[in-house]
This record gives sequence, structure tokens and C-alpha cells, in this order.
Amino acid sequence: MRTVYHVSDADAYHISEGKVRNLLGDETLDMTAAAVLIDHPGSIDAAAKGHRQTTEALVGMGATVKLCSNAFGGAEADEDVFPDGVELVSSGVGELTRLQNEGWVYIRL
Amino acid sequence: MRTVYHVSDADAYHISEGKVRNLLGDETLDMTAAAVLIDHPGSIDAAAKGHRQTTEALVGMGATVKLCSNAFGGAEADEDVFPDGVELVSSGVGELTRLQNEGWVYIRL
Amino acid sequence: MRTVYHVSDADAYHISEGKVRNLLGDETLDMTAAAVLIDHPGSIDAAAKGHRQTTEALVGMGATVKLCSNAFGGAEADEDVFPDGVELVSSGVGELTRLQNEGWVYIRL
Repeated sequence: MRTVYHVSDADAYHISEGKVRNLLGDETLDMTAAAVLIDHPGSIDAAAKGHRQTTEALVGMGATVKLCSNAFGGAEADEDVFPDGVELVSSGVGELTRLQNEGWVYIRL
Repeated sequence: MRTVYHVSDADAYHISEGKVRNLLGDETLDMTAAAVLIDHPGSIDAAAKGHRQTTEALVGMGATVKLCSNAFGGAEADEDVFPDGVELVSSGVGELTRLQNEGWVYIRL
Repeated sequence: MRTVYHVSDADAYHISEGKVRNLLGDETLDMTAAAVLIDHPGSIDAAAKGHRQTTEALVGMGATVKLCSNAFGGAEADEDVFPDGVELVSSGVGELTRLQNEGWVYIRL
């Protein structure tokens, strides 16, 4: 099973860390992938700085952090400040559409 | 691919315009339909008046704006003030259930 | 058709009652199950006390109220204060993943 969390504010991003931990730690499930998609400029900056620890924790658990390219254009952070496991996607809503079409589960945080 | 946005406040409705533009403009996807479903009376009124421009823009891009009949009962706007491309649905949650059963992707704004 | 509502605050929980009523009362649909999943400690306590009436109404309509075990650990309510129709699930996000994989529709309140 594969699940993507949709995040549009810094608080939700911070919460996503525990939600990924709970998901990957749920022994009743067979999870093969988890992702957190951010589609808001301020939250992308939070992922780079204020909530950097959340970003490190997420990729450390094997989750992918996906940044909407459109939102990224409004953020201050540069792409190269992010660790491996963080990637730009064509558009946030486009990626959420693509993932769900591929069978990923969607959860809004 | 077909995607429906679920909107319950006026700000989210306003944001939906850019989100539809990003989705339909994402060249990595093959989108065949986009819809914005409103299930809140005040937001339906916003779609009629305060955010009328958003409504015009959405239908102008080919998206359908769907209004929950239950919420519509609590709104002040009359049905005939809306342009073509805006339609009443049996219930917001019912339509979201029907669309997802038909393969539409769901995104909560 | 089967639909699960995802709830993380007491207001959304309160709203879920009408949303379940609208869904089950929508004669254009063939609903076989409805559930409300709560993944927030304060909202679990609200389901036990402040919004107890909502809980009674939901299970009275035949909906299942699902409580995230992780969130339950942070709540004050005991499990035995809840009526039949309320159940603990392994994790909120895990249950939402499992249900969607089984074909349930997801709606974020």
C-alpha cells in the first residue's frame, strides 16, 4: 500500500512526521511507500528551515517529500538546500492526481 | 484523468481557480475533466457574488462547479444567477462519493 | 458504496452528523456503509462528552465511529464510555489507507 499526505500549511507539515511514523509503524498494514506533498510556498520554506527537522525525519524514515513546482516558485528556499528524498513535482495537484490514478491512497492533513 | 476539488469555505473557493489552472496546465497529465464541489452555504453565495470572478474563470477553463443541494438551501443566491457550467447536485458528499466511485480523483482544498 | 469521513477537530466531528445524514439520505446513491474516523485526542474526548449527542446520532444512523489508537492514548476518555458502534482502530492513517484500498471513498471534513 502507498499513501500520500497532502499538506498546505506549516503546522500540517510538522504533524506529518508523526502521521508517517504511525503509518509505517502500523503492523496491520503492508506499506510500500509514503509521501508528503507540499503545495504552499510558506510551508516549503518551513520544510527548508523552521521545520527542517521534520524534513530530515521524514526522509530518514524512507518517505519522499514532494514539492509543488508552482508553489516552489513563490518560496524563498533554493532547491539545493533540501536533502535527498525531497523532490520537485510538475504541480502539486497534478502529482496528487497522478499518484491516485496509480493506486496511491490520499489523506489530507 | 478527472479530478474534483472539495471546497467548504470562500478562501478555498478562491484558491481553486489557480489549482484548476495548474492542473489543466500540467503538461505531464492527460486531464479530461475538472470540477469544484462546494458544500457550504456561505461559499455558494461567494461563488455567486464576492468571488463571482472565480466562478467565471472556472467555467471559462472548462471546469464544472457543483453546488450541494443541501447547502444551497441555506444560501441566499438563486440558481439562475449562476452561469452555464454551474450545476446543483443531489448532495455534496453524495456527489463526491459517486465521482470517486466512477474513478475521479479527490483533492481537498 | 462506502464512505469514510476523516475528522481531526471537534467542529468537524459535529458537522459529520449532518454529512452522514445527507449521505445516507441521498436517494440517488446506493450506500452500504458510512464511517467517521477521528484521529485527534481532543476530538475523541468531544465524541465522549461535549458532542456525545453526535456520537449517539451517528451510531443510531448505522455509521461506525472509528478512533485512532494513537490519538486515543492522548485522550482522557475511557473506551467503555462509548456506545456500540464506536471502535478503536490500529492507527487512523492506517485505517484510512486500508479502507481506501478496499474501495471506500474518502472525504475530509
